[in-house]
Amino acid sequence: MSERLKGNILVTGTNRGIGLELVKQLAEKTGEESHIYACCREPEGVRAEALRDLATQYPGKITIIKLDTSDEDSISGAVRAVSKQIGAAGLNLLINNAAINKPALPGSLAATGKKDMMEVYETNVAGPFLLVKMFLPLLQRAAERDTPEKDKGDKMSCRRSAIINISTLISSIEKCPETFHMAQMYPYRTSKAALNMLTRCQAEEFKTHNILVTSIHPGWVRTEMGGEEAPLTTQDSVVGMLSVMSSLSNKDSGMLLDWQGNMIPW
Amino acid sequence: MSERLKGNILVTGTNRGIGLELVKQLAEKTGEESHIYACCREPEGVRAEALRDLATQYPGKITIIKLDTSDEDSISGAVRAVSKQIGAAGLNLLINNAAINKPALPGSLAATGKKDMMEVYETNVAGPFLLVKMFLPLLQRAAERDTPEKDKGDKMSCRRSAIINISTLISSIEKCPETFHMAQMYPYRTSKAALNMLTRCQAEEFKTHNILVTSIHPGWVRTEMGGEEAPLTTQDSVVGMLSVMSSLSNKDSGMLLDWQGNMIPW
Repeated sequence: MSERLKGNILVTGTNRGIGLELVKQLAEKTGEESHIYACCREPEGVRAEALRDLATQYPGKITIIKLDTSDEDSISGAVRAVSKQIGAAGLNLLINNAAINKPALPGSLAATGKKDMMEVYETNVAGPFLLVKMFLPLLQRAAERDTPEKDKGDKMSCRRSAIINISTLISSIEKCPETFHMAQMYPYRTSKAALNMLTRCQAEEFKTHNILVTSIHPGWVRTEMGGEEAPLTTQDSVVGMLSVMSSLSNKDSGMLLDWQGNMIPW
Repeated sequence: MSERLKGNILVTGTNRGIGLELVKQLAEKTGEESHIYACCREPEGVRAEALRDLATQYPGKITIIKLDTSDEDSISGAVRAVSKQIGAAGLNLLINNAAINKPALPGSLAATGKKDMMEVYETNVAGPFLLVKMFLPLLQRAAERDTPEKDKGDKMSCRRSAIINISTLISSIEKCPETFHMAQMYPYRTSKAALNMLTRCQAEEFKTHNILVTSIHPGWVRTEMGGEEAPLTTQDSVVGMLSVMSSLSNKDSGMLLDWQGNMIPW
């Protein structure tokens, strides 16, 4: 039986799509003691209007944080802002959701240049790498805190302290031949395979701290990135992913699961 | 039974270590009709002395080409230089061997910054991506040329037209827990997992052109990168890898093999 998520939760890329829906459902489903840090590049911009409306609906429960994961100074600023507010409780759950895909679909070899390769890696891999490195003290604080979670010894969970890297089926090297001809997406595919390696490295590095690290594939979702033909609504994807997150334990750390909890091969 | 390698062969990162040994053994083992394009960043530099000596030993068989895989203009220049010399025969075998590892071993999380992540990806992934994209016309020319190889229909081989991406056991996401605590190497691990994805994408993209693409792990080799404790000599590693390359066929395209031909999981 899975327990519901709680505590201090940070999500990146929350002005739209899956990130926005994650914040919405987390605000709905977590108790009063929980707080959501919703990060996005331009909190004041036109494209963050829905996020601002959502924050207004849950006064005192959602804090919008300015964060561009491709900018090291921006990450430092976000860490400072969250640290100031979060206090002794630490950060229980960090969801690396912000990601970009270039060039435009289908992203053929001819259309792809070095700039695409570098920019996509910067946001999708170097960003989560740095973000986790810099938020590590807050994650450790949550993992070590005197709570019922800590009494469970070395049992890891998304309630205690966890990192979720939002990955994709397209990250699977094994399954590449099944998906490649629909959309080549060299920069995105290589970046997400690298993100899976990052997940696996972080899981190894942080297991002695009792911090869980798992990659989750949200399904093929009807978002700006997924396109209109995608079979899954953002809402259903997020319901599934939050249910999976709620039930994650030690055995899932360092793995790649889909939004229904099924394991995906590397 | 494997046939020996032949034709026009290009190797990157050849001023030392595995790259230098690849050029040496290829020069020794291939026939007179073969030609080796040995690429390195600074052909005139002190660190390329051994390569220059080798080229002198095989007059007319080795051409040294200036190439920095992290520099787009340098790649264009190398393609122009090779194209001019190679003529109608095309390029039979491209070995992406040039790679860097930063920060210094063991490459802890604390020692690793964004610059390391970006620079290692630039050389180890964006470089091979661009190099292959720009050498593709020459690889296609070799694959389509009227030779006994072409008469074999859609049979792929390193004699007809192939790309070998030098990878590493450390690229294996599956095996990360076995190797992580020896050396964390976040930038190198993530870059090489991405390179494996690139191999798989290239294999899918180029199979209709009859161009074979395989990742090979050279073993843990006693080089500047591998360190003095490594159990394998550069010579033995290269003997093994060239033997594996000689025997590659359609079933091996898009796979990761070690220097003895064993499959490594992603």
